[in-house]
Amino acid sequence: MEKIRVAIVGYGNIGRYALRAVEMASDEVCAGIVRRGGSAGGYRELDRYAVVSDIRQLENVDVAIVAAPSRHVGEVVKTCLEAGVSTVDSFDIHTGIAALRMELDEVARRNGVASVVSAGWDPGSDSVVRALLAALAPEGETFTNFGPGRSMGHTVAAKAVPGVRDAVSITVPEGKGVHRREVYVVLDDEAEGDKVAAAIKADPYFASDHTEVRVVDDIAAFDTESHGVNLVREGAAGYRFSFDMRINNPALTGQILACAARAATRQRPGCYTLIEIPPVDLLPGDREDIIRKLV
Amino acid sequence: MEKIRVAIVGYGNIGRYALRAVEMASDEVCAGIVRRGGSAGGYRELDRYAVVSDIRQLENVDVAIVAAPSRHVGEVVKTCLEAGVSTVDSFDIHTGIAALRMELDEVARRNGVASVVSAGWDPGSDSVVRALLAALAPEGETFTNFGPGRSMGHTVAAKAVPGVRDAVSITVPEGKGVHRREVYVVLDDEAEGDKVAAAIKADPYFASDHTEVRVVDDIAAFDTESHGVNLVREGAAGYRFSFDMRINNPALTGQILACAARAATRQRPGCYTLIEIPPVDLLPGDREDIIRKLV
Repeated sequence: MEKIRVAIVGYGNIGRYALRAVEMASDEVCAGIVRRGGSAGGYRELDRYAVVSDIRQLENVDVAIVAAPSRHVGEVVKTCLEAGVSTVDSFDIHTGIAALRMELDEVARRNGVASVVSAGWDPGSDSVVRALLAALAPEGETFTNFGPGRSMGHTVAAKAVPGVRDAVSITVPEGKGVHRREVYVVLDDEAEGDKVAAAIKADPYFASDHTEVRVVDDIAAFDTESHGVNLVREGAAGYRFSFDMRINNPALTGQILACAARAATRQRPGCYTLIEIPPVDLLPGDREDIIRKLV
Repeated sequence: MEKIRVAIVGYGNIGRYALRAVEMASDEVCAGIVRRGGSAGGYRELDRYAVVSDIRQLENVDVAIVAAPSRHVGEVVKTCLEAGVSTVDSFDIHTGIAALRMELDEVARRNGVASVVSAGWDPGSDSVVRALLAALAPEGETFTNFGPGRSMGHTVAAKAVPGVRDAVSITVPEGKGVHRREVYVVLDDEAEGDKVAAAIKADPYFASDHTEVRVVDDIAAFDTESHGVNLVREGAAGYRFSFDMRINNPALTGQILACAARAATRQRPGCYTLIEIPPVDLLPGDREDIIRKLV
């Protein structure tokens, strides 16, 4: 069987874990890495791969895992789709997903390829659980409680604030879907803590949550890749559903991206969120075997 | 918007709950009931519906919920598909699902309709969770722990044993996916307890589990509709996933059948298990709205 040829676009935290997931997958092979500089830049695990600066420099790519910050995902995905390459990403700004999907749907169809957006764990696999629970208990309310753990999206957003040298944003669950954001920041020499704190709190990532900004000398003691979710739906007639997980945040994102890459090759042209994709398409191997084992 | 016209075939425990779920659904309407006798038989809630003995006697049916015992599901579903009506069922004999799906796939395609098999909660929604967790943590083992609660499939199987007047089969979790079956039976006058117990233990439903058969005068004290699941996957690197639910067994089955009926109208001709269907298709309403709310 031909393996699925997967390019990794962007080689930050998520890109590195996505590469590991692709390497572990029995039916996928890495077709190359796209980095702005176009070089491996000291990452020795990239020695065996083509590292280029533009997706069009790689040959026979079936699907690209776009591991870029959410704010850049749209443009990078479009470049890939226009090059005739299917894509997956982990765009994580919940309020922007529906619009991004609609915009990319047109581009994907026009180029005869598929795009899977927001394929991380939330949005992503948690979304699938939320959709399933909404079907099982139509009357009820779902609460998604995150953490404690580092939020990658919030950490990237905090790091992007002027005056911030380094930062980490820890999500602390306060129950019933309410969270506190604890942001630990190392300041640039000239930066003022109050102004930086105000800028972080005004960022769309933080504006709707209780956010505390603490200036520290080093974030190491506050940083962690461990994360978790407790997703609860209580319905009529005493129904109760609970989904819990304790995972490594960037590693699980990389794993889901590798699964979504497989699924992308199985969808008709267009743009999809994970709830629009048959779960079986995420899995490697023969469909009949999967049905026998898992159904 | 035109509502989906759903027939209920079989009006036992599941059929009654399926009707309630159809009546509660904003986008579905009951198109009639199919019962062997072709009459309402004292069920006053059926007064407002056509009750017939053959699916072909009902007009404009989009999809039939086949609420028959698993052993009869195949033949009943085929009758509906041959009549040009899509179907859903909750066939629950795990070892027979792949073969049933393959057999019905051909019939469904030939008649240009869709069939969703094994659309209860296990097999069914639990299968979706198992598929999702297998994708999230490729290395690991999933345990599905049932109960305590009444198993409908096992109860029907026990009641079908000669010499049994009434029975209920309670599933008791013993951990790591191992279960004990406690079968409470009321005997026919001439029946011998030992022979009945041996026949139950030899039944394919019970043969692979530790089964205890207890002869009682009345099953009422042992019967319950409450049921539950604790589904656990432990993966590499300390990953842990847990899905728990506490539900009403036949009511949740009826609800999932009503959701699968909706999904059946959205699939191309063929036969599907729930893991082959996009979760969003289970939900009523506009896809864009669902994405905005749940993704």
